[in-house]
Amino acid sequence: MSNQNHDRRAAYTGDRTIVVADTVPLPPEPGEISISVAYTGICGTDLHILHGAMDHRVTVPAVLGHEMSGTIRAIGDGVDGWTVGEPVTVMPLDWCRECPACRRGYNHVCHRLNFLGIDSTGSMQSSWNVPARLLVRLPPDLPLQLAALVEPTAVAVHDVRRGAVQSGERVLVIGGGPVGLLVALAAAAHGAEVVVVELDERRRDVAATLGLRVLDPASDVSAAIDEWTLGAGADAAFEVSGSAAGVTMAIQALAVRGRLVLVGIHSTPREVDLFRVFWRELTVLGARVYEPDDFATAASLLARGDIHAQTLISRVVPIEAAAGAFAALERGDGMKVLIDCRAAG
Amino acid sequence: MSNQNHDRRAAYTGDRTIVVADTVPLPPEPGEISISVAYTGICGTDLHILHGAMDHRVTVPAVLGHEMSGTIRAIGDGVDGWTVGEPVTVMPLDWCRECPACRRGYNHVCHRLNFLGIDSTGSMQSSWNVPARLLVRLPPDLPLQLAALVEPTAVAVHDVRRGAVQSGERVLVIGGGPVGLLVALAAAAHGAEVVVVELDERRRDVAATLGLRVLDPASDVSAAIDEWTLGAGADAAFEVSGSAAGVTMAIQALAVRGRLVLVGIHSTPREVDLFRVFWRELTVLGARVYEPDDFATAASLLARGDIHAQTLISRVVPIEAAAGAFAALERGDGMKVLIDCRAAG
Repeated sequence: MSNQNHDRRAAYTGDRTIVVADTVPLPPEPGEISISVAYTGICGTDLHILHGAMDHRVTVPAVLGHEMSGTIRAIGDGVDGWTVGEPVTVMPLDWCRECPACRRGYNHVCHRLNFLGIDSTGSMQSSWNVPARLLVRLPPDLPLQLAALVEPTAVAVHDVRRGAVQSGERVLVIGGGPVGLLVALAAAAHGAEVVVVELDERRRDVAATLGLRVLDPASDVSAAIDEWTLGAGADAAFEVSGSAAGVTMAIQALAVRGRLVLVGIHSTPREVDLFRVFWRELTVLGARVYEPDDFATAASLLARGDIHAQTLISRVVPIEAAAGAFAALERGDGMKVLIDCRAAG
Repeated sequence: MSNQNHDRRAAYTGDRTIVVADTVPLPPEPGEISISVAYTGICGTDLHILHGAMDHRVTVPAVLGHEMSGTIRAIGDGVDGWTVGEPVTVMPLDWCRECPACRRGYNHVCHRLNFLGIDSTGSMQSSWNVPARLLVRLPPDLPLQLAALVEPTAVAVHDVRRGAVQSGERVLVIGGGPVGLLVALAAAAHGAEVVVVELDERRRDVAATLGLRVLDPASDVSAAIDEWTLGAGADAAFEVSGSAAGVTMAIQALAVRGRLVLVGIHSTPREVDLFRVFWRELTVLGARVYEPDDFATAASLLARGDIHAQTLISRVVPIEAAAGAFAALERGDGMKVLIDCRAAG
């Protein structure tokens, strides 16, 4: 027996399998920082990877995870401005600086984006080495469990910013999973009145616990929106469900000059009522990941309690139980599940 | 024989028929101005009406026409600020001031919009009485034939403004009919580099005469755009063709954060690659008619020669020949045809 820490990682090995194995932490390369990972959240994307839907992008064994928090464990050569032990998270996007998107200043949608945890090694391990430029400092009063939600909260902040949500506006969020509810909370933090539409009763319950108004899509959503908006329609809608029905509902729900922000993934083309887009002068915007400012805003909203995300954390499980945690989420059991990646002493 | 003028009107009477008949000019009601109409252009919408496609909106016999120029003939009670003989055009939109769109300040897309020449009597007649509030003063040096193009030019100005076109941007216009070419010219007047895609060879020739770069959609448009934009894609695209293929081409052509402005009418839902909209953070905007400022800008662009629209006028025909003029346009013979509505002496 030694008193060396017991490092582990959870990796997707293909064939719908997650395998947890012991690892030996590597020292950071020059320009890198090594993070002692505290918590890593399981994202819908991770489930897609587990299903094999992203096998063209991942290289097995693939350590997943891009929603995380931790503390600095070691600092590589040539890195300044950081201190061992500091709490941090990572903006898991590394861009090329050369493609047309980067040249236009939209690095976050770089044509050759390296998304850590998908295109390269992620944080579902006790020790994670990343380029120092991707580190994000955490407010000191932000608990590390909540800090693992900075990344999905940054998605929501970006979406709400793209949708230019203003105080007092009426905002419809279609899809009440973790991202949908974070979008709803971020819009509410902007002073918007928010209604969430969600199929799943358990998720509707979570939304209600968060103080959000929530509708079952099986109810007469159109009549409810008419009543809510006095016949005008919603100022903005966020399509987070990734469903064809969600797109149709959003386009139908919007007021003149309303904005529809596409957050969910639509893997096949959707029939869209472009006449309605024309007639009401709607705007349909894509919103993908986040920019650095969104990350900083997300951390601050969580730290100040302006977004009460604690309720979204269904449970925290040890990394040994990662495979079971994925399986439970696949069954729809739970909203956000965190993997405790801390090295056993 | 008297020396009274000989007034006529051209009306759609149903069953794909245009009938020209004598009329007696009515004096303006209080609040109205009576215009001696000089020229009325035939719009694509007028052709749709002739085809019966808008029989739910028009009341026969329907005097069509909403692209016009003329001079003030008589002024109704309670109307100030206008002089008999002044050259004018009309912004053919009358709104309710009460609906949710009007209350939001978007009168031009009023839920109960009265579009003159569609929902009520239009300008294809020698004398047209309209509410004084709809009159638009013309620059004195703008010939009346060109002035009949202020309305479609205002459409183009509105579209380009909605698309936020900037100097130096690369702009794709899909559809090279009168509105498409006016959009192209308005974008070029903003300093954009413009490429027009148009099926019809005769229309491509007109575009080329106007100094516009033009592509046949049967050619490798994608390769041409890649070469033109150095692989980045276009900054903005205008879908003016109303075709499913046009939407697909536009979405494919756009750069990261590119804007697609929907100008054409899509009477059935279209399959749209929403994944691309998400992935490249595109914006898809509807743009419908114009706001008062667009009308003023259009008149000024035409008067200053910043938009060389004279080339778009294929011919000017007397009102007696209106039916034949509609028939020729239906055969694709001609770009913009003006009806000379002046009363015979």
